Amino acid sequence: MEKDYLQTQSYAADISSIKEAELRIGPYIHKTPVLSSKSLDSISGRQLFFKCECFQKGGAFKIRGASNAIFSLKDDQAAKGVVTHSSGNHAAAVSLAAKLRGIPAYIVIPENAPKCKVENVKRYGGQVIWSEATFQSRESTAKKVQQETGAVLIHPFNDKHIISGQGTISLELLEQVQDIDTIIVPISGGGLISGVTLAAKAINPSICILAAEPKGADDAARSKVAGKIVTLPETNTIADGLRAFLGDLTWPVVRDLVDDIITVDDGKIVEAMRMCYEILKVAVEPSGAIGLAAVLSDQFQQNPAWKNSNKIGIILSGGNADLGVLWESFSK
Amino acid sequence: MEKDYLQTQSYAADISSIKEAELRIGPYIHKTPVLSSKSLDSISGRQLFFKCECFQKGGAFKIRGASNAIFSLKDDQAAKGVVTHSSGNHAAAVSLAAKLRGIPAYIVIPENAPKCKVENVKRYGGQVIWSEATFQSRESTAKKVQQETGAVLIHPFNDKHIISGQGTISLELLEQVQDIDTIIVPISGGGLISGVTLAAKAINPSICILAAEPKGADDAARSKVAGKIVTLPETNTIADGLRAFLGDLTWPVVRDLVDDIITVDDGKIVEAMRMCYEILKVAVEPSGAIGLAAVLSDQFQQNPAWKNSNKIGIILSGGNADLGVLWESFSK
Repeated sequence: MEKDYLQTQSYAADISSIKEAELRIGPYIHKTPVLSSKSLDSISGRQLFFKCECFQKGGAFKIRGASNAIFSLKDDQAAKGVVTHSSGNHAAAVSLAAKLRGIPAYIVIPENAPKCKVENVKRYGGQVIWSEATFQSRESTAKKVQQETGAVLIHPFNDKHIISGQGTISLELLEQVQDIDTIIVPISGGGLISGVTLAAKAINPSICILAAEPKGADDAARSKVAGKIVTLPETNTIADGLRAFLGDLTWPVVRDLVDDIITVDDGKIVEAMRMCYEILKVAVEPSGAIGLAAVLSDQFQQNPAWKNSNKIGIILSGGNADLGVLWESFSK
Repeated sequence: MEKDYLQTQSYAADISSIKEAELRIGPYIHKTPVLSSKSLDSISGRQLFFKCECFQKGGAFKIRGASNAIFSLKDDQAAKGVVTHSSGNHAAAVSLAAKLRGIPAYIVIPENAPKCKVENVKRYGGQVIWSEATFQSRESTAKKVQQETGAVLIHPFNDKHIISGQGTISLELLEQVQDIDTIIVPISGGGLISGVTLAAKAINPSICILAAEPKGADDAARSKVAGKIVTLPETNTIADGLRAFLGDLTWPVVRDLVDDIITVDDGKIVEAMRMCYEILKVAVEPSGAIGLAAVLSDQFQQNPAWKNSNKIGIILSGGNADLGVLWESFSK
């Protein structure tokens, strides 16, 4: 059935566009390592393989999509620069990719973005423009900048080049570890999970893709139940990278090809961050740790549908957490 | 001149014993990844390659030596178990390697060892025996256990199998990164640096080996100046893994083949830990971060002898730091 979808339905990206992305972005990104831990295998009762995108350039997977989008632009398009709105990691990635291409980057950042992510944008030479915290304010501010500068909008997720770029993670992961049967992916706007899913299911149609979503921003889980995109009046989660809602390019992939969505509360996310730090020795931000929280959740562990998920890839999507904030949440 | 030493002088290990170790321990250890960061390259003015032994089993390089020593024992020797004294990482490694071999491990731990390291020993099934904090008390307590149980002493560093095991890091690192011209290694009892040096200089006699040592436990630097092993009445450093003194098997390597010893104060070690966390996204303990502190020090940066050190391997030797202690030292 899923295989039929892949063959008959047209999505924003496919295995060819993802392989093209891999070639295009190769010079600009790290091939990130996969870590494993017998202790975490024992705690989870499965074999876990952590794809460490926290070690990616800019500290998150976002450079994959951003560099694919920015290096896909024609010279005359690129000349006026690029603009985006983002809580941080996509912003830093666009700044970095624009710097590598030698063009300006205008970055709309919501006022509640983590400090370390804003610092990353500045470090890579992005020009910061503040907006209110709402998605609406982010979008309208970006539109204004776009009109004033002629810059090209690089959407954080609802864009075929972004989705194709993020999908390169699956190409690497499935080459690095044989016989992975399940991949757990954080979900927000859906760019990452769309790319990862389209690549992984093209390579192995029987692979399971599970989304991990904060309970306080569970729009994707609700969308899946409703059969249409659901948005929320507000979100409330420590996972600052997972507060966006699905777009019209990412929703069809989530609807048709993502096998399930596991929601976890913030307490479990913090616990997973702590395990990443203490056991894996990796600094992971809340949005990045949610996959580990999902695999340890009752919703996953007690669902018979996943009892044959034995070799599980978990995408540690990013590592940009303010240390003080981290410690505060650990101490609670 | 160094080449002559390698050819004419006999040390506790050599490239053959190190290659044998690599084969012996292969099934029991991780081949750890090497990370790099353009930000840290730019801060240091060099190309840095971080060999992440913090991701090693047990959270530190020590399993390399411990598994080499324990799997070298004949069955009848091994049957009565093994004993060691250690501030923590070697202790955990001996516990783990003994567990893998199915024999008992008796672990003498000084009362000031970090909690997380003691927890590691217990997690791997080691039997904890407490001693006072001094090296003398550690050694005499271990001797007593040895006499009572018939267990074989696995010395933390002054042992040819330990030195050979630790040396396998160089085999991996020089295969993972081409043309490394310098390796910076934390120094304590000298087991790690002896193995790393003997392997690296056998492969490339012109490679530079620099030791990194805390100012508050600078016995190796003093030994090098004095031309003989110097011990200190007391040590005072946050780097709990770097408080031991050289042994008669490690001193000749340090004397003849280690090119220089860079001493750094605790403030710089904490700063380097913070950079590892915030930029590399890696949890590193104080002893593990000292190599980065060394490459950033004036003693390194302003010494014309190292101005041609361009491709530098830095061994992040371990990641077992209590998070609370870490945060406290960051906050100061």
